[in-house]
Amino acid sequence: MISTVTMKWDGKALELIDQRKLPQTEEYVRCTTSDCVAAAIKDMVVRGAPAIGAAAAFGYVIGAMENSKNLTEERMNAIKGKLAKTRPTAVNLFWALDRMHSKFISLKGKPDFMIDKLNQEAEKIAVEDIEVNKKMGEYGQTLLSNDATVITHCNAGALATVDYGTALGMIHAAVDHGKHLSAYVDETRPYLQGARLTAWELMKLGVKTTLICDNMAGWVMKTKKIDAVIVGADRIAANGDVANKIGTYSLALLAKRHNVKFYVVAPLSTIDVKIKSGLEIPIEERAHDEVTSIRGVKIAPENVGVYNPAFDVTDSDLIDAIITERGMLTYPYETKIANIVKGGAVH
Amino acid sequence: MISTVTMKWDGKALELIDQRKLPQTEEYVRCTTSDCVAAAIKDMVVRGAPAIGAAAAFGYVIGAMENSKNLTEERMNAIKGKLAKTRPTAVNLFWALDRMHSKFISLKGKPDFMIDKLNQEAEKIAVEDIEVNKKMGEYGQTLLSNDATVITHCNAGALATVDYGTALGMIHAAVDHGKHLSAYVDETRPYLQGARLTAWELMKLGVKTTLICDNMAGWVMKTKKIDAVIVGADRIAANGDVANKIGTYSLALLAKRHNVKFYVVAPLSTIDVKIKSGLEIPIEERAHDEVTSIRGVKIAPENVGVYNPAFDVTDSDLIDAIITERGMLTYPYETKIANIVKGGAVH
Repeated sequence: MISTVTMKWDGKALELIDQRKLPQTEEYVRCTTSDCVAAAIKDMVVRGAPAIGAAAAFGYVIGAMENSKNLTEERMNAIKGKLAKTRPTAVNLFWALDRMHSKFISLKGKPDFMIDKLNQEAEKIAVEDIEVNKKMGEYGQTLLSNDATVITHCNAGALATVDYGTALGMIHAAVDHGKHLSAYVDETRPYLQGARLTAWELMKLGVKTTLICDNMAGWVMKTKKIDAVIVGADRIAANGDVANKIGTYSLALLAKRHNVKFYVVAPLSTIDVKIKSGLEIPIEERAHDEVTSIRGVKIAPENVGVYNPAFDVTDSDLIDAIITERGMLTYPYETKIANIVKGGAVH
Repeated sequence: MISTVTMKWDGKALELIDQRKLPQTEEYVRCTTSDCVAAAIKDMVVRGAPAIGAAAAFGYVIGAMENSKNLTEERMNAIKGKLAKTRPTAVNLFWALDRMHSKFISLKGKPDFMIDKLNQEAEKIAVEDIEVNKKMGEYGQTLLSNDATVITHCNAGALATVDYGTALGMIHAAVDHGKHLSAYVDETRPYLQGARLTAWELMKLGVKTTLICDNMAGWVMKTKKIDAVIVGADRIAANGDVANKIGTYSLALLAKRHNVKFYVVAPLSTIDVKIKSGLEIPIEERAHDEVTSIRGVKIAPENVGVYNPAFDVTDSDLIDAIITERGMLTYPYETKIANIVKGGAVH
């Protein structure tokens, strides 16, 4: 049993809040098939690297239930493949599916027993995600003084995770420590996760929230006192380069110019040491109509060409700290990342 | 008589294409009162620094016609004041009104004669704007090789001027010289001048046009071969700092990082030597609903705070050249600007 705003799991069905309709409508999509879960990830009913990881884990369990009469490795490999091919950039998706599939392969017994164990593993992924976010929040909040003003991009909040959030988890923890915070929220075109999701979450947390268009962050840094930019991550390479929502890179460059701290808050499951540097990370390109229309309203000429990369890569030298559940890493990252993923100490 | 896509003037009425409705609807607003012209500038029926300068000049003529029975300096001062207070950042507005008002003060004779002379002056401003744009285009196009790829922001095209455009005038001239160009167009939130106006204009010019969200320009510069960023200007300070549409500053910083040339195309009427540096330029803040809704569709929570600066300032050291109708200036600008505005040679 998992029950958060983002997702509800009762051992049979996965309910996902439809993030495409927030904040105007709070509506859940109920999935009882692995196809439904795959479509929900692909179509961004659920989004945010840790959230899609957990959703995929539950999708994998549903896939096992669908194949209970013939629960073979081949069948589960197909389920894994279907769920994996929904989105290419966030590594948490593959991490969660690999973890579920390894568990499956390690199991011996009747289908009901195996499904029960897989269910436990998926729930563990979800519960751990919340714990990990709270730990990162605690580490991160020490970087924020009372009355700090931050900029955040996209949504790395409770909705991007099972609960609590990564970047917004850091803000949440600071608020829990009695700090008053102000936040400028990039609206985050084309999908408007900032305007729709982050503003909604931060207002609920009691943070003084000011919405801006993405192209205003530079002027905000130049003319207001900004203490930090805080973002999540979709994949972190071995050298500390960070793939995150498109626009993150520009923010990091502006932060460097204005001596504003730039922090990435992400669980270790976001680190992909197989990827040496950011330019190797596959960057998803999404549909043109996300750019040419906004919530169904056409805003561009017919037949205009469109380029719609969903993510970009921020060079590690622009990042002041990567905050994980085992502590904070600072530039240069390569040795520190290699060490922490092996279970070594943070130093 | 002036007749362009942007504005039509028959000596009595000013018709302005309603730029809020383009490209879906091509509709003209017909103004026969100075109040109507002031409202059209304020509400962005007409926008773009040179275009609002010319529109204000015609508004001034209409104001003189309204006061033909008592054509006093006091009355015309009030007309000037009304038209001037519509928008604070683009200096071309004040430049055109000052020019009209100086003309008025220099005139002696009957009201009909004076109105006729004012009409001639306003038409001269409009005709000169087109000539100036073509000259800038000629100078500017020498900087673009065949098959060049550029990024542009907002709309500095025919629609932002009486005709031909500033930044897009440079592209127009290059096309006229037989060069094949490609352009990435920032959509330019919140008002979407890029998506709605620039994409429309460039496609008509036969330029390979790719629309992107503003936050994608950094990734485009990092992963594609971009030769130049080309923008217009709303006001240029004595030191060469440039106020232009919000987001220009971030683009300039990204261009510097990626060794992409950054060009500003603007007539001398955009230079305001009374302003020493960019931080003295008044930056207009516009209504919150431009950010919280897009073409009438709500995209953010109720009651969220909003910051909506319409312009930002780009530091002159980030600008490779300012292209005027008298030639190109390069950094550092202070002495060169002081010289060119006094009529001195470009060097």
